[in-house]
Amino acid sequence: MSTTPILNLNRFDASAPGLDAATLRMVRRREAAFGPNSVLFYKKPIVVASASGAWMTDTDGNRYLDLYNNVPCVGHSNQHVANAICNQSRILSTNTRYLYETIHDYAEKLLATFPNPLRNITFTCTGSEANDLALQIVRACTGGEGIIITENAYHGNTTAVAACSPSAWRTGAPPPANIRRVPAPERFRSADPDPGATFSKNIELAINDFRANGLKPAALLVDTYFTSDGLLDGPAGFLAPAFETARKHGLLVIGDEVQPGFGRTGVMWNFLRHNAIPDLVTLGKPMGNGFPMGGVVVRPDLLDRFTREISYFNTFGGNALAGATGLAVLEELQGRQLVANAAKTGAYLKKRLAELAKQHPCIGDVRGAGLFVGVEFVKTQDKLPQWDGRQPDAAIVTRLVNRLKELGVLIGASGPFANVIRARPPLCLTETEADFFVGKLAQALDETN
Amino acid sequence: MSTTPILNLNRFDASAPGLDAATLRMVRRREAAFGPNSVLFYKKPIVVASASGAWMTDTDGNRYLDLYNNVPCVGHSNQHVANAICNQSRILSTNTRYLYETIHDYAEKLLATFPNPLRNITFTCTGSEANDLALQIVRACTGGEGIIITENAYHGNTTAVAACSPSAWRTGAPPPANIRRVPAPERFRSADPDPGATFSKNIELAINDFRANGLKPAALLVDTYFTSDGLLDGPAGFLAPAFETARKHGLLVIGDEVQPGFGRTGVMWNFLRHNAIPDLVTLGKPMGNGFPMGGVVVRPDLLDRFTREISYFNTFGGNALAGATGLAVLEELQGRQLVANAAKTGAYLKKRLAELAKQHPCIGDVRGAGLFVGVEFVKTQDKLPQWDGRQPDAAIVTRLVNRLKELGVLIGASGPFANVIRARPPLCLTETEADFFVGKLAQALDETN
Repeated sequence: MSTTPILNLNRFDASAPGLDAATLRMVRRREAAFGPNSVLFYKKPIVVASASGAWMTDTDGNRYLDLYNNVPCVGHSNQHVANAICNQSRILSTNTRYLYETIHDYAEKLLATFPNPLRNITFTCTGSEANDLALQIVRACTGGEGIIITENAYHGNTTAVAACSPSAWRTGAPPPANIRRVPAPERFRSADPDPGATFSKNIELAINDFRANGLKPAALLVDTYFTSDGLLDGPAGFLAPAFETARKHGLLVIGDEVQPGFGRTGVMWNFLRHNAIPDLVTLGKPMGNGFPMGGVVVRPDLLDRFTREISYFNTFGGNALAGATGLAVLEELQGRQLVANAAKTGAYLKKRLAELAKQHPCIGDVRGAGLFVGVEFVKTQDKLPQWDGRQPDAAIVTRLVNRLKELGVLIGASGPFANVIRARPPLCLTETEADFFVGKLAQALDETN
Repeated sequence: MSTTPILNLNRFDASAPGLDAATLRMVRRREAAFGPNSVLFYKKPIVVASASGAWMTDTDGNRYLDLYNNVPCVGHSNQHVANAICNQSRILSTNTRYLYETIHDYAEKLLATFPNPLRNITFTCTGSEANDLALQIVRACTGGEGIIITENAYHGNTTAVAACSPSAWRTGAPPPANIRRVPAPERFRSADPDPGATFSKNIELAINDFRANGLKPAALLVDTYFTSDGLLDGPAGFLAPAFETARKHGLLVIGDEVQPGFGRTGVMWNFLRHNAIPDLVTLGKPMGNGFPMGGVVVRPDLLDRFTREISYFNTFGGNALAGATGLAVLEELQGRQLVANAAKTGAYLKKRLAELAKQHPCIGDVRGAGLFVGVEFVKTQDKLPQWDGRQPDAAIVTRLVNRLKELGVLIGASGPFANVIRARPPLCLTETEADFFVGKLAQALDETN
């Protein structure tokens, strides 16, 4: 199977017993329309009815605290955002080839959250389109083709971006010739005192390997939070040497903020935690709180160079409806100080989880910044001779994820070993809701042990 | 310049004189945020305020009949669609990994408009993503890489799809090795009695050329209306031999219905006019009437083969908000019989334009199906020795497009010579509105002659 661990883990097997007739009928309708691409979450899938704030409700009235979906950053069915969509859809929804105040207000407000020299933006509809456009820009600007990614990276679903996403590679096919993978920095499983230096060194090796094979490298493409490599929140600053190395060799740096961006890690952009500024930053998922939006924030000289060679137009990217929606999301993030809440509530959640870890040796590590927290599970039983307490346990994670769903908590997993539970709730999460999660996790662990 | 003719033609030059201070200020704000990608329509760009039905209104209260935008197929700011977006955004907007009635209702209702064997759909957010996914599917299913396109094709903006769009190729760069271009079928400029047979023969030559170069072909990718090749509405059935030839050699056929689909040509899907069914059909622009939506409708056996090798997931594709929006668009199309209106009002418009052509020798041809009508302009003055009345005149089209805007009509141009005005209004266009356009075009022509 070439699916990402996260999808594998929660993949629904339609033969699972115990489905009621109505749910089974809907599963069959779905399979007829979507075919084998009809993947559902959970062994017993959720028939969803509505969602509000950090909570989803199913058609039986059961409520679930949603720590899974990283799209509704300002809360499910956010009323301020819904009002903006409502109003705009009754007035105008057209493309960016006309002048329209809302679009320009939005672009300026968004760009104001970025440091120099990131002063231009091109809007797209998805994070995949954003990463694809970023690849087009770096290739046009460097004349190179080679892209360096991390071992277990995921950057999206277009042809070019899927080539940069090992989990989307075709089974058995050789890796794309223009891609080199480097191990993601790692703290839990490694005694390396300086993961930043190691990461930087590996990037240099990849560049040398490109050159030895007669391929000109173009860019380092990196999720600054290593989301699908199991999450790595720090140490702060460890990305800077990697960026420097890439640039020393003429590469550009694309910072993929599709997952960590928009305040999730307790700062507006995760790269700010490392004091290392990419040449291009790609945006997606939470940008429209469910409305399809993405974008590439870029150094003006690079966009200028690209635009001289290639004409890029995106029919829906930054249209009036997207502009009004994106603006409302920013207003909510700033007006309700949700980035600060992510930092504060995230720190509280991490503290509570660290306490829980003391009672449960199967929790090997608790890490994260803001409301993007990973809990890594390890085996405590079958101790091998070389056992050091860090043998990954994916099985317990599968059990916990499905049991937590029964207990009213939705959560996913991540990492090369599919053994890291990752919490990424709406940024409006309260301490009471964090307590609810920790309580249910404790209950599930007690049942498991 | 490598921009498409359509963008070149209406590209705004910021140095254009006569802009008022407020508009100029907005242009400068826009340039600061969007950089050189800040392309606007018209020499004096429109500062848009609102839009309704087939009409757009600027901030000075001027109204424009919109024959340009092919996205708002059921009318700008359509109230039924706006209500659906409003309601849904207050209830739920999450991805397709949960069961949700609205999504399944929409998928079934949409698939019911397709003939066998097109029984599965995968949702995306844009036509570009749809064509990109279609390329991934045909490559996985055939093991081939080669794609055959038409001379002046445009299929979208991702890396892989831009490679299939000559107008998006980098200036001076060699054509992509895995692409072969064939001339689009042509009736106005050619005495060919059987353009379908010629098209088919050219496809066979391209396949042979692939093989001679050791490249396995995968698919014929074709806009069934040849939208960026200058429009070709018929003769009905002329696509069938091309499809047969492609399949005889093991290629699959991707029918790009991003522009002609959803009833524009007077039938729900343009390929139905030719009684030739593609193996994959790609959807986009009008699908959500401005909400970013796209999709690939596909033979189940192909999707099955693809899914066994590759895991495809699209975060926003077919989410609850998209489902509710798409469903409302279909309800409007069907409930108000807009496809039949496109056929009827389109025929009326074509008749009126043909009458105008009799008085204006610069109109070389009027063609089209439904509300997708092309008016091809030719030179009447500088008759060369080999002059046959078909010398393209792009200059008059540029003048007409800008003058029509001043007269309250928005329209664009197309074709390899940028000399074809194309009308593609909302499908709710009335005969009175068609008369308005023809009257203003007559006035502009009288002024020009």
